[in-house]
Amino acid sequence: MQKAFRDIDTILVSILSALVLLAIGIVPTLAQEPLPSWNDTQAKTRIMEFVKATVTEGGPDFVAQQDRIAVFDNDGTLWSEQPYYTQLGFVLDRVKTLAPQHPEWKTKEPFKSVLGDDLTGVAKGGERGMVELAMATHAGMTTDEFNDIVAKWFTEAKHPKTGKPYTEMTYLPMRELLDYLRANGFVTYIVSGGGVEFMRPVTETLYGIPPEQVVGSTILTEYAIVGDLPVLKRLPKINFIDDGPGKPVGINEFIGRKPIFAAGNSDGDYEMMRWTTVAKKSFAMLVHHTDAGREYAYDRQSAFGKLDKALEEANRRNWLVVDMKADWKKIFSFE
Amino acid sequence: MQKAFRDIDTILVSILSALVLLAIGIVPTLAQEPLPSWNDTQAKTRIMEFVKATVTEGGPDFVAQQDRIAVFDNDGTLWSEQPYYTQLGFVLDRVKTLAPQHPEWKTKEPFKSVLGDDLTGVAKGGERGMVELAMATHAGMTTDEFNDIVAKWFTEAKHPKTGKPYTEMTYLPMRELLDYLRANGFVTYIVSGGGVEFMRPVTETLYGIPPEQVVGSTILTEYAIVGDLPVLKRLPKINFIDDGPGKPVGINEFIGRKPIFAAGNSDGDYEMMRWTTVAKKSFAMLVHHTDAGREYAYDRQSAFGKLDKALEEANRRNWLVVDMKADWKKIFSFE
Repeated sequence: MQKAFRDIDTILVSILSALVLLAIGIVPTLAQEPLPSWNDTQAKTRIMEFVKATVTEGGPDFVAQQDRIAVFDNDGTLWSEQPYYTQLGFVLDRVKTLAPQHPEWKTKEPFKSVLGDDLTGVAKGGERGMVELAMATHAGMTTDEFNDIVAKWFTEAKHPKTGKPYTEMTYLPMRELLDYLRANGFVTYIVSGGGVEFMRPVTETLYGIPPEQVVGSTILTEYAIVGDLPVLKRLPKINFIDDGPGKPVGINEFIGRKPIFAAGNSDGDYEMMRWTTVAKKSFAMLVHHTDAGREYAYDRQSAFGKLDKALEEANRRNWLVVDMKADWKKIFSFE
Repeated sequence: MQKAFRDIDTILVSILSALVLLAIGIVPTLAQEPLPSWNDTQAKTRIMEFVKATVTEGGPDFVAQQDRIAVFDNDGTLWSEQPYYTQLGFVLDRVKTLAPQHPEWKTKEPFKSVLGDDLTGVAKGGERGMVELAMATHAGMTTDEFNDIVAKWFTEAKHPKTGKPYTEMTYLPMRELLDYLRANGFVTYIVSGGGVEFMRPVTETLYGIPPEQVVGSTILTEYAIVGDLPVLKRLPKINFIDDGPGKPVGINEFIGRKPIFAAGNSDGDYEMMRWTTVAKKSFAMLVHHTDAGREYAYDRQSAFGKLDKALEEANRRNWLVVDMKADWKKIFSFE
């Protein structure tokens, strides 16, 4: 056998071998450490130890792939919820956009306060005022129309403190955590008190989470025919509040399986964390907002994302409390 | 180059090439025709032409994989709904099981009729009687307990006409259709008027459809702590009826995308078929029960699965009407 030919054959075999490895997915990729925006603290270690245990076949804590369900709160867990919820930002902007069609709002609360940029006045309206604002801005159109309104708003609206688009106010370490879990066979769900149709237009782009993996609060919709076209009309009536004890209810109704991983940041996530940690091998974590410099620092006294009872319980139940300041190298991509 | 060596290299290269093809999944498998229990009639042709068009990249009707959503009614579409719904069979059996704890049922309708095997008497109770029976058998326990009750019932209960387990009363051609769609990148959902927690314990085994892809009617549940254990209690109050105009509502709420393929068999599926066929490239089909010998023959006059308006509309809208007698080679696996 002539050397030149043998070499060519050897090269061919090598290329084909590489292709085989590539094709069946066992070629070693360039070593990329997971969770690069997490500091090498105990938080990262605990997360990775849990994931490794659940995916180790034959190990005592192995969890079959179909049972690797992870649930994530959104506001304050995946993106910023201060100085107020993103969805409240949408409500405030939307009231201003619609004001010319509602001259009566100039003198009628809670609209008057919104139009006068008086947030204290808005807060005075309490829950009843908030529901009124929500219904005026979230109902009275079809689901397709609302989807377009929300999608358009996200392309224009800016965060009141940073001036960045709301879509850039997501936490990079948490996006890495979602990726890391999915790379390990987990299915990642959002389970949020926010409106499901407010989140769905952006969750796939922001988090890689498709519409069918978003559980949230809903308003009633009604099927109707307009011309010859079927539509769903959004009615001014709340259907389901996916918060607090509503979260396990929503998880059961929409997913129909118990999660084994839950991430939240407030007392509204407490019941979801309890529900998740019923499983023998399970993990619950709280994002604790401790970084006033890079983001915000708040817990027990906050109007949005109050964290009190869940923080107490975290110690007792060995849930991970992530200290944003100490555990996260970077919070936002734009830093 | 010596011939022997060259031959060995050629063999090696061939083996590796075959491995590559195998690994990347383009090796031709042993030709297994899809839908083997379907006769070679127009029904099969139309389904296959639709699927081929949606998966042909570069073609005018190509549909991206994430938009290949298929929705299936359950009763009368995936399994038999005569002489009465499977879930009604569960209700009747369950009343008898619980009767010793409810001596008052001996003289109280609609329970008295159930205990006396008087189905006409049960029917006389109307919708109110049915709700009363449903609540007495579906509420008052935790979701986990109900799951176990249902799962156990399915291992024991028999269909009143065939004497076969209800789990064998599924339509083989429809199971093949589910497989065929999934093999072509579709995600298959059940969207049924049946109770979601009545279906979920068996849909994965029967149809390859996991719990999170089952949309159905629900009753209210409530989060509670028993001892130190969080549970969801099933309350005797209907939360959502996933039938008729409720089906598009349920699809929007649970899936958050519009389907492009819908299969049903009754007027309760009409709105779902309208909602599905809004999409430019879409497909709707009705299973028409025409085979009194092998299954049942019924449509406009049936108490269960009445098919009238949807059958009229099918012609007008070019929806496929599957003639079970003519289009299906085999209906049940046990034939």
